[in-house]
Amino acid sequence: MTKKAVVLYSGGLDSTTCMAIARADGFEPHAMSFAYGQRHSVELEKARIYAPQIGAIAHQLVQIDLRQFGGSSLTSDQEVPKDRPMDDEIPTTYVPARNTIFLSFALSWAEVLGAFDIYIGVNALDYSGYPDCRPEYIHAFETLANLATRAGVEKTGHYRVHAPLLHLSKAEIIRVGQDLGVDYGLTHSCYDPSPAGIACGRCDSCRLRLKGFAEAGLEDPIPYETRDAKN
Amino acid sequence: MTKKAVVLYSGGLDSTTCMAIARADGFEPHAMSFAYGQRHSVELEKARIYAPQIGAIAHQLVQIDLRQFGGSSLTSDQEVPKDRPMDDEIPTTYVPARNTIFLSFALSWAEVLGAFDIYIGVNALDYSGYPDCRPEYIHAFETLANLATRAGVEKTGHYRVHAPLLHLSKAEIIRVGQDLGVDYGLTHSCYDPSPAGIACGRCDSCRLRLKGFAEAGLEDPIPYETRDAKN
Repeated sequence: MTKKAVVLYSGGLDSTTCMAIARADGFEPHAMSFAYGQRHSVELEKARIYAPQIGAIAHQLVQIDLRQFGGSSLTSDQEVPKDRPMDDEIPTTYVPARNTIFLSFALSWAEVLGAFDIYIGVNALDYSGYPDCRPEYIHAFETLANLATRAGVEKTGHYRVHAPLLHLSKAEIIRVGQDLGVDYGLTHSCYDPSPAGIACGRCDSCRLRLKGFAEAGLEDPIPYETRDAKN
Repeated sequence: MTKKAVVLYSGGLDSTTCMAIARADGFEPHAMSFAYGQRHSVELEKARIYAPQIGAIAHQLVQIDLRQFGGSSLTSDQEVPKDRPMDDEIPTTYVPARNTIFLSFALSWAEVLGAFDIYIGVNALDYSGYPDCRPEYIHAFETLANLATRAGVEKTGHYRVHAPLLHLSKAEIIRVGQDLGVDYGLTHSCYDPSPAGIACGRCDSCRLRLKGFAEAGLEDPIPYETRDAKN
C-alpha cells in the first residue's frame, strides 16, 4: 500500500517542487493550503485548481486569520518591500510563528490520516531571513511531533518532517523540479500580485525566483509586471 | 513596566487557575481562546464574559475548524464517553495535535505583543491520558519557540512555556486557586454540557473535577445534571 504524506502547499514554486519530490519518494501527497489573511490570497484559487493537476490525492484548505494579530506586511496594510537590499535582516514579510502554525495543522491532519510524513518546502539558503526556515527549527518540530501525538505515546510510528529543499539554491530547486517534470507555469510566487494575479517582479519572492531561473539557465514561464532579477 | 503573558484560556477550572497564577507571577495576562468546532462551544460565550472578570487585560478568540479533520469525539458526531473506566488508554476525546495548534497561535500572538511568556494549564497527573499534556512535550515546545521566532535569531528574549499545574492533582489545583481568590463559579469543565450549559457530571472532565473538589474538601459551586465522582 502506498503511504500517505501531508504536503504543505501554497501553489508556489517551492511547495510544488516538494509535492513532486513526495511523489518521487513513493508517497500519496495530501496537500494542505492556508487562507490566513495574506494579501496574496489570489494564490489560493490557483492552488485549488492546480493541486489535483500536480498529483495531490486530496486537498484541504484551512481557514485561519493571522490578521487578528498583525505583525507582518503580508497580513496587514503595511507595504510589502520592493527592490530592498537582500541582507541578513528579517524582513517585514516574516509572519510571526507562521510555519509553526502550518506544521501544527499538518500534524493534526497527518495523525487523523494515519500518515507519518510531512513535507515542507522551506529553504535555508535563499530563505529571505526567516527564523522558521532553518534546519534546527525543522528538527525541533520533528521532535515535538513525536511527543505531541498518540504515536509518540504508543510507539506505533515515527513522524518525519521532510524539508527536501532545505539546502538547495533556487536554481537547484528548479533543476530538481525540471527533472521530475514539474510544470512551473502552474506555480506562482509573488507576495504582492496585481488584482488579476500577475506577479510584481520586484518583491523578495519574485526576485529570488527570477534569479533562480536565470542561474538555472531556464526561462520562467509565468508573466510578470516587471522582470528584474538584479539584487 | 508589567510584562505581558499569553494565557491559553478555555474558561475551565485549570486555565482559570492558570490565569490567577500568571497574575500572581506579576504578568498582565492576555487570554486566548479557541473556537475549534468543539461540541462544548457554550464554554466560549462564558469565557468571553468571564475573561475580564478574572483579570485578563485582553482576550482573543481564534476561529479554527478542527472538524474538517475529525479524529476526536470532541470534534465529530461520535459520542463522548460517559462513566468510562479511567485507565491509561488515550480516550476518544483526544483531539489530534490540539495543544500544538493552540501553543502555535499563542506563540504568534506573543511575538506580536512582545511577550515571552505563555501559560498553559496542562496537567500530567489527572491528565486523562493525552500525549500533549506531558512535561517532555511542554519542554519540546519551549525549545521550538526559541528557534521559530525573531527573538530566537536575534537573541532579544527567551520564550518560556509555563505549565504551573503540570505536577499538581486536581485537588491541589483547586487549593492553589482558592488561595489566589479564584471564583470557581466562573468556570466550567464539561465536555458535553446540556444546551443550557449545565455540566453532565459523567464525562471524564466532570468526574475529575468533582473528585478534585471532594478531595480538597470543598463544594463545587457549579450546577450538574448528575453528581458522580466515582471512578
